[in-house]
Amino acid sequence: MELPDAARELIEAGALGHLATISASGAPQVTCIWVAVRGDHLETAHLNPGQQKLRNVERDPRVTLSFEGTYIKPPGLREYLVVHGRAEIVPGGAPELLQELAHVYLGPDVRFPPVDDPPPGVRMRIAIERLGGIGSWAD
Amino acid sequence: MELPDAARELIEAGALGHLATISASGAPQVTCIWVAVRGDHLETAHLNPGQQKLRNVERDPRVTLSFEGTYIKPPGLREYLVVHGRAEIVPGGAPELLQELAHVYLGPDVRFPPVDDPPPGVRMRIAIERLGGIGSWAD
Repeated sequence: MELPDAARELIEAGALGHLATISASGAPQVTCIWVAVRGDHLETAHLNPGQQKLRNVERDPRVTLSFEGTYIKPPGLREYLVVHGRAEIVPGGAPELLQELAHVYLGPDVRFPPVDDPPPGVRMRIAIERLGGIGSWAD
Repeated sequence: MELPDAARELIEAGALGHLATISASGAPQVTCIWVAVRGDHLETAHLNPGQQKLRNVERDPRVTLSFEGTYIKPPGLREYLVVHGRAEIVPGGAPELLQELAHVYLGPDVRFPPVDDPPPGVRMRIAIERLGGIGSWAD
């Protein structure tokens, strides 16, 4: 599914993604990552293909991402977006996507990764399946 | 274990907790919640004891919370705290804890919950077992 405009705009404004995956023991693992919206997918970039979150996803592709909003909905709950999805690992393209995302998360002039010959890494493509949280996307 | 000062201060300054639990299907479930630090535990309050996250915790007490920091560590990764813990449900005390947390998350004069006779609800007591993320607490 595609994201409603308000949810897409939240991510594209630079909200950090809290990515929850399932570790080998079955317990939740969480890391914060930069996230791009690509139609009905989210996409993330990883220079190090050995990261635990990537191994987790190869074992169990079900992931959940949460993003904080800025609006506090009366009586006092901050809006947040939850995206339930299914991830697959795609080889290569990490430096290019990180550079694109660095402009969103850090600033228009930032060079990232700040090295001359970064490894190709991997990307995670996350098919968007269901939304939750607090906000117009969860009603 | 107790939190290092920098981690405790982050939560007590009003960082929102992204709570990941394991749903019946084994997939991660995430909600954002207010969190209090109590020595070697975290504590949360829930007026509705039927919430899915509470049922998840009764089935599998392993939870992971993540909190965004404000400092961007060079070359560009925002600090964040991850707390791995083990949760148990404790009856009652939700309105009192929510009122205490409303002063942190909303403001010194806020009355919360904004009703005259709130139900006692439940609290979640989360024993802190291991830390992660990016920051002095993860080194």
